[in-house]
Amino acid sequence: MQFSQEDFEKAKEQVNLLQDEPSDDIKLKLYALYKQATVGSCNIPKPSMLDFVNKAKWDAWNSLGSMTQDNARQSYIELVSSLVPAEPSPVNEIPPGSKYETLEVTTKDNITKIMLNRPKRKNAISVKMYNEIMKALEEAANDDSTITVLTGNGDYYCSGNDLSNFTQISPGGMEESAKNSAELLKKFVQHFIDFPKPLIAVVNGPAVGISVTLLGLFDIVYATDQATFHTPFSNLGQSPEGCSSYTFPKIMGLTKATEMLLFNKKLTAAEACSQGLVAEVFPDSTFQKEVWARLKAYANLPKKTLAVSKQLIRNMEKEKLYEVNSQECECLMERWLSEECMQAVMSFMQKKSKL
Amino acid sequence: MQFSQEDFEKAKEQVNLLQDEPSDDIKLKLYALYKQATVGSCNIPKPSMLDFVNKAKWDAWNSLGSMTQDNARQSYIELVSSLVPAEPSPVNEIPPGSKYETLEVTTKDNITKIMLNRPKRKNAISVKMYNEIMKALEEAANDDSTITVLTGNGDYYCSGNDLSNFTQISPGGMEESAKNSAELLKKFVQHFIDFPKPLIAVVNGPAVGISVTLLGLFDIVYATDQATFHTPFSNLGQSPEGCSSYTFPKIMGLTKATEMLLFNKKLTAAEACSQGLVAEVFPDSTFQKEVWARLKAYANLPKKTLAVSKQLIRNMEKEKLYEVNSQECECLMERWLSEECMQAVMSFMQKKSKL
Amino acid sequence: MQFSQEDFEKAKEQVNLLQDEPSDDIKLKLYALYKQATVGSCNIPKPSMLDFVNKAKWDAWNSLGSMTQDNARQSYIELVSSLVPAEPSPVNEIPPGSKYETLEVTTKDNITKIMLNRPKRKNAISVKMYNEIMKALEEAANDDSTITVLTGNGDYYCSGNDLSNFTQISPGGMEESAKNSAELLKKFVQHFIDFPKPLIAVVNGPAVGISVTLLGLFDIVYATDQATFHTPFSNLGQSPEGCSSYTFPKIMGLTKATEMLLFNKKLTAAEACSQGLVAEVFPDSTFQKEVWARLKAYANLPKKTLAVSKQLIRNMEKEKLYEVNSQECECLMERWLSEECMQAVMSFMQKKSKL
Repeated sequence: MQFSQEDFEKAKEQVNLLQDEPSDDIKLKLYALYKQATVGSCNIPKPSMLDFVNKAKWDAWNSLGSMTQDNARQSYIELVSSLVPAEPSPVNEIPPGSKYETLEVTTKDNITKIMLNRPKRKNAISVKMYNEIMKALEEAANDDSTITVLTGNGDYYCSGNDLSNFTQISPGGMEESAKNSAELLKKFVQHFIDFPKPLIAVVNGPAVGISVTLLGLFDIVYATDQATFHTPFSNLGQSPEGCSSYTFPKIMGLTKATEMLLFNKKLTAAEACSQGLVAEVFPDSTFQKEVWARLKAYANLPKKTLAVSKQLIRNMEKEKLYEVNSQECECLMERWLSEECMQAVMSFMQKKSKL
Repeated sequence: MQFSQEDFEKAKEQVNLLQDEPSDDIKLKLYALYKQATVGSCNIPKPSMLDFVNKAKWDAWNSLGSMTQDNARQSYIELVSSLVPAEPSPVNEIPPGSKYETLEVTTKDNITKIMLNRPKRKNAISVKMYNEIMKALEEAANDDSTITVLTGNGDYYCSGNDLSNFTQISPGGMEESAKNSAELLKKFVQHFIDFPKPLIAVVNGPAVGISVTLLGLFDIVYATDQATFHTPFSNLGQSPEGCSSYTFPKIMGLTKATEMLLFNKKLTAAEACSQGLVAEVFPDSTFQKEVWARLKAYANLPKKTLAVSKQLIRNMEKEKLYEVNSQECECLMERWLSEECMQAVMSFMQKKSKL
Repeated sequence: MQFSQEDFEKAKEQVNLLQDEPSDDIKLKLYALYKQATVGSCNIPKPSMLDFVNKAKWDAWNSLGSMTQDNARQSYIELVSSLVPAEPSPVNEIPPGSKYETLEVTTKDNITKIMLNRPKRKNAISVKMYNEIMKALEEAANDDSTITVLTGNGDYYCSGNDLSNFTQISPGGMEESAKNSAELLKKFVQHFIDFPKPLIAVVNGPAVGISVTLLGLFDIVYATDQATFHTPFSNLGQSPEGCSSYTFPKIMGLTKATEMLLFNKKLTAAEACSQGLVAEVFPDSTFQKEVWARLKAYANLPKKTLAVSKQLIRNMEKEKLYEVNSQECECLMERWLSEECMQAVMSFMQKKSKL
């Protein structure tokens, strides 16, 4: 089947309208094919090792070698059409009129439920989602609910920071990008430190990265037996955040915390429970039913008493948590600008793009 | 069988001589029958919701409806006679000449043993017992013993704060009462923070409320497998004390501590042990024998060395514990004066008085 | 068999050439027999209780009663000859040219391995070994390795402080000795607090005393199922060190920490793991293989990232750890000069010398 230039232009437009953001490897593939189709074989100098985003793009383009522009155009069109969903995405995923794009937020039975809602991206946290979670927490703090619950839609609880956040370099360059990211992260974590009501995580599947480290700031964590807990920071040349450098050693002792935070050990739900990160593990088949029955009972307890008791416990270490959050973000900012981190992220992305 | 007015007067006197203080529901019943017998049907206006003691009394009286004065007198006499023990209570419970009414304190084998001794009230801590425990700790701190043990007489270790303490409103009104209670509590907890020798809890049965939260301040906790650990504060509109808002998250991690302190989770002895609140659990049948053999061995170790080592560990967080104790008592005082707490306590007492 | 005076002189010389330092009880026996052989029955006044080294020597000599000088000489020669090894000790224990006498230090695969190397003394830490460990840590901190490992040669990980350190009273008397020991200890522990890279303990067998308490300062602890963890301080009238009075309650909760640090409870490897002191326990048969495979993988992670993450976690409590170390050493210094401690050490040594 032969495609026209018109098909190509149409495909180009469809990319911008995709409901689900493609993964990083797909994006690199799209970039490479588009360049090959419009420019021909890669004809620009190889970027420096430190300029890791452009290096990754260059690698993708260059890997197409001498593919003809026609073949590239055709591959591009085919790839795009495979990304466009055959059916419109089910409307029940996001309630009509919802003010959130990446979350579904509902309040019922004295419980405000914040559900991460990018199931096709395994609920990876994009910049948009960071901002929406903060907004949802601010609203939950002030609404009439007694407790607030964070959970994920689909198989994953959350796959962590969306690595595509890394590819959005601000005009001020790498340093400004790193600074902005660190500030966003700091503000984000602070929302969890300051949250004034009982905050409960319902971990419905695998949790990765910052969605794990933040658990130390939740008042209760319940998990399905299908959940896992993984913080592969060192692999990516990065240091821990979410106050985990303080909360994890406090919860599970230094030696088990170090295995996770420095050496990428992935915990099963049972291990996370015996190490004190999770309060209780439920069989996946009855998880939602059992947990929500329990949460409804909790939400009937005297509301102010619960808030006051939570704050009594939290206030004792609030100053410490602020300090930890600052130090962690500063440390991460330095990491992001380090060659070790750049090479680690680049090698990770290249591994993924070798489909 | 018909009772005379003389029988009624005699019953009235017997009430004041009862060796064991009746429970709150019995007291309300006695009050109601006495009023019905002497005044007739309830004829006073319903007290305000906030005046919760008088409201409870009014409810009890009012619940008797149009019962005749004769029937009320008869019921009163029968109730009192059921409370008077057939036999004099065994003298071995409190050694003759003991200076404590609510405790039995003995020193033997380098061990001072403080036994809560109100078994018929499940060793609930009355105001008198609060004061006697403080006195006993002061004496144990200065005697020749090497270690000090706290335990309970009978099936319970301790059922927590005696709720009848709530009904003793001081002349200065609710606020003064709350302030006095908070000051008593603060002084009481401070005795545990400051205790200079190894302090060991021998938990011989269920433990409730403050008898649980204080365990975080003991150097060792041993428990029978019949023990349970329950802190139903939120049910009663109250916040945690005994430094548990600091010690419990430190011992078992925030998520498991919150389940107990905010959401009333009752732990088995095995759970308390795996969460680090209890050092070891023993089968009930051999509990006393095994534990006391071990304690006798402990008490033969060099006395000053043990005291110095305990203080080395404790002094590192003493200032923190003082601060926590203050904040908890202030928080509780506010709770006691809150409508949420009053309603919760009242509803609890009414449930109990519906025999 | 009869021995000549020449044999006796030769035996005397051999004692000074022994490759392995004899145990304390053997040394006391040698002293006693030598005195009995050269002077006759004990003829000096009994030293005071406080002068515990001389008291121990006097006891040993005096216990020989009226043994003849000839018999004493013969026993002395026999004892010495039993201490001289038949074969020269295997040279592979200490690599030729090693600058360490008590350690074997190697760097390979990005790992610096510091192995305690006095297997015949169960890797007890002599004053020399204290100094060599500090030197080895300083070098490991600055070399190219990614992680540093401490382990023991032979069946033991480490049997703790070499009690013969106690018998080296400095010319300034007991007080100066105690002060010097406390200063050495403080400097030693500080090397662990300050160590800048991931520090991992590979506990290959029983661990005693300071080798246990220091584990709270390691980033990861792996153990064979043959390991045990024992801190019998109170038995010897001593208080805990190595920052364990802070790290142990933090890791395992106060009640389980007190059982170890005050009441000499010895933990199995499985118990140490469930209490959070050990990250994972391995079957002894595969211990070395499994652990080193894992460590090699760890050592391939980005080096700076690991160091930065470790320091992020450690720096949060560094000031606290310095303070704890100071207080512990001061406390121990007082203990060492206390009668309780002197009597406890003496009674321990006498028990050992009653062969």
